[in-house]
Amino acid sequence: MSTPAAGAPDAAPHDSLSRFYSIIPAGGIGSRLWPLSRADAPKFLHDLTGSGSTLLRGTWDRLAPINGDQRIMVVTGRAHRAAVESQLPDLADHNVVLESEPKDSTAAIGLAAAILRRREPDVIIGSFAADHVIADQRGFGRAVKEAIIAADAGYIATIGITPTEPAIGFGYIHAGGKLGIADAPNAMAVTEFVEKPALKTAKRYVSDGNYLWNGGMFIARADRLLEQLGESRPELLAGLEELAEAWDTSRRGAVVDAVWPRLEKIAIDYTVAEPAAKAGRLAVVPGDFDWDDVGDFASIAKLHAGGRKHDLAILGENARVLADASSGIVVGNGGRIISLIGVKDIVVVDTPDALLVTTTANAQRVKSVVDALKLSGRSDVL
Amino acid sequence: MSTPAAGAPDAAPHDSLSRFYSIIPAGGIGSRLWPLSRADAPKFLHDLTGSGSTLLRGTWDRLAPINGDQRIMVVTGRAHRAAVESQLPDLADHNVVLESEPKDSTAAIGLAAAILRRREPDVIIGSFAADHVIADQRGFGRAVKEAIIAADAGYIATIGITPTEPAIGFGYIHAGGKLGIADAPNAMAVTEFVEKPALKTAKRYVSDGNYLWNGGMFIARADRLLEQLGESRPELLAGLEELAEAWDTSRRGAVVDAVWPRLEKIAIDYTVAEPAAKAGRLAVVPGDFDWDDVGDFASIAKLHAGGRKHDLAILGENARVLADASSGIVVGNGGRIISLIGVKDIVVVDTPDALLVTTTANAQRVKSVVDALKLSGRSDVL
Repeated sequence: MSTPAAGAPDAAPHDSLSRFYSIIPAGGIGSRLWPLSRADAPKFLHDLTGSGSTLLRGTWDRLAPINGDQRIMVVTGRAHRAAVESQLPDLADHNVVLESEPKDSTAAIGLAAAILRRREPDVIIGSFAADHVIADQRGFGRAVKEAIIAADAGYIATIGITPTEPAIGFGYIHAGGKLGIADAPNAMAVTEFVEKPALKTAKRYVSDGNYLWNGGMFIARADRLLEQLGESRPELLAGLEELAEAWDTSRRGAVVDAVWPRLEKIAIDYTVAEPAAKAGRLAVVPGDFDWDDVGDFASIAKLHAGGRKHDLAILGENARVLADASSGIVVGNGGRIISLIGVKDIVVVDTPDALLVTTTANAQRVKSVVDALKLSGRSDVL
Repeated sequence: MSTPAAGAPDAAPHDSLSRFYSIIPAGGIGSRLWPLSRADAPKFLHDLTGSGSTLLRGTWDRLAPINGDQRIMVVTGRAHRAAVESQLPDLADHNVVLESEPKDSTAAIGLAAAILRRREPDVIIGSFAADHVIADQRGFGRAVKEAIIAADAGYIATIGITPTEPAIGFGYIHAGGKLGIADAPNAMAVTEFVEKPALKTAKRYVSDGNYLWNGGMFIARADRLLEQLGESRPELLAGLEELAEAWDTSRRGAVVDAVWPRLEKIAIDYTVAEPAAKAGRLAVVPGDFDWDDVGDFASIAKLHAGGRKHDLAILGENARVLADASSGIVVGNGGRIISLIGVKDIVVVDTPDALLVTTTANAQRVKSVVDALKLSGRSDVL
C-alpha cells in the first residue's frame, strides 16, 4: 500500500457517498456504568440521555439519513441479537453479524469490512460506536461526508471532536497540516494518537488547538483498511478473510466455530489507526459537534444537567425520587421510592439485584467494583 | 398529695423490690429510622445493635433479672401483638395491654399503672422504653433499685444518664440537692426538665455537671403517679380509671371501644414529670451507665463504630456490601449487592420498597421525608 497522493482521489467524489456502508459494532458492556450496564443489558441497550431511545437506536437514527437504513451493518454478540433486532426493526438480516464471543474491535470491524468488500469491492465503510451520544445530526453528517471523501482519496479517515474542555477520559488526536483533498477541505494529516492524558497534558492539548478528541470513528475504503490491518496483523487478517469467504455460504457456521475462537482480541486503534498514522495514511476531519462517549455516571449527570451545576438527574422508567438538598444522578429501575437527603454530587444506581452509591468524582472507579465482583465469583450480578 | 418528707419512706426498703412491676410501652414507630422502621415494622422490633436481639427483647432481658419475667407488662398496638409475643415467649397474657390506636405515653403508661394498681394497690411501677440501648446491665440494675426505693419513699423517680458529650438530640434533667433517702443515697431533687437544647447550651450543661440526660424512665408508686396525673389531667385520668376498672372483666372490649378513642394524646413528660418537678416531687437517680435512644442512623453508626471514626457499620441479615474508601452505615434487608465507592459518613438504608441515601450529619432530617411521603399519600411505604 502506497501513501495516497494528496489531491489525487481514487474515484470521483460524487459517487463515493453511494458506496458508503455504516458498521455499528455493538459490543462493549460499559463496566463503568455497572450495575445499570451489564452482560445481559449492555450500555448500548439503555436510554442514558432521557431521549426515549436507546443509545443503539440513537446511533442508527444518526446514520440512516446519511445513506439509508439498508446500508447499516450491526456487529453484536449472539446473546443480544433479539434485543438489537427489537430496537432496529429495519435492520436487514444480511446486515446482522453475530459474534460467538467478544474479540474486541479489530475482529468486529475487520470482519464486517471483509464481508462487505466481498459483496461490494469498492465499498467505503464507516465504523461508529453503538453507545456514544451526539445531538447535532447535521454537524455529524457534514463531518462524515467529508471523511467519506477523504476515505475515497485513499486515506483511513477518522473524525476528531473539537475539545470543549481538558477531558482526561478521552484519547486525543494530534492533527497536522491540511491534506488539500478536493471536497474535503478540512481533512488534515494525523501526526499522533494519544491515550487518555493527565489533566496537565490535557490542558496543554486544548490550548494548543491542534488536538482533537478521538471519537473512535473510522471511515475507509474496506480494501485499504484490510490492507493496513494485514501489515500489522497478517494472521488476524487471514482469519477474518476466511470467515468472510464463508459468510454468505452454507459453510458459515462451521467456519465461525473453527476460526472465531482463535482470533486475536485487540482494539482497532492498535492494529489499524496507530500504524496508519505512523505511515502518513491517517486523515482526520474535525467534527465541530457535541459528542460524548457517556463513559461513566458523571458524564451522564453532566449530559442531563445541560451544564447546570447542583442539579439532580433522574433516569429510569419507574424512578420515584424524593430529593432534598441533593445533586448528582439517580438511576432507578427498581420501581422503589428513592429518598435522598443532603447528598451532593451523589450517584445512586438502583437495580433489582444490585445497588451502587458513589459520587460523580468517583465515577471512573466503578470499573474496580466490577473487577472485584468478578474476582469474588459474583458474576451473576455483572 | 403532699410533698414527701425527705428521709421518711412510706414503706420499709427491703420489701419495695418485690412490689416492683416493669412496664414497657412499645409504641413509637421511629420515623427518623425510616425506611427501616415503619408502621408495620417499628423500631423496637429491629436489631439495631447487631446483638442478634431486637431492641424490645433487649429491654425485656434487662428487666427480667430485676424482678422476674412474670412482672413485666407490655403496652403495644393491636397490629404488633403477634410480633411482640413471638419476641417475648415468656410474656404472660395478663401482662399484654393492647392499644386500639396510638395515644402517646400518658395513656399507655397511665393505663398500665391503673390496671396494676387495681391488682396490687401498693405496686411500684417502672416504665422503660422498648427501643433504647443499654449495655451495662449491672449499672442499670443498680440505678433502677435505687429509684424503686426513692419511689417507695413517695417520689416520682427518674433515672438521669451522666452525659458523655453535649448531645443535642436528648432532653436534660437539672439535678438539685441530695434528698437523703435511706438506701437511695444518690437520689436528688429535680429542679427542671429541659427539652433538646442548642449545642451551646448543651455544652454549658455538660460542663456544669448538674445536668443529666433524660432517659425517659419513670419509677413511681402507681397511686402516686396517677394522683399526680389527676392534678394536671383529671379527665384523662378518669378515662384511664374507667378502662382499668373494666380491664379484668368481660366488659373490657366495650369500654375500650367507648373510652380509648377520646383519650387525650399527650406525652407523660408534660402530664406527670414536669408538674411533679415543679411540685418538688420528682427525684432523679444518676445512671452512670451507657445509654442511647438510637434515635437516628447516625446514632446507630456511632454505636457500631464503638467510638472509631471512619468505620462502616453494616446491619441486616442478608447485607452483602462491597465498600471502597467509604464510611458511615449501611442497612441492607433487600438481599442485594450494595456497592459503595468513596462515600464518607454515608447512610444507605435498603429495603424492598424504599431506599434512603443520606449522611450521618443529615440523619435527623429523615423524619421530614416521612412527613413528605405522608402528605403525598405514599403511606404504603411508611
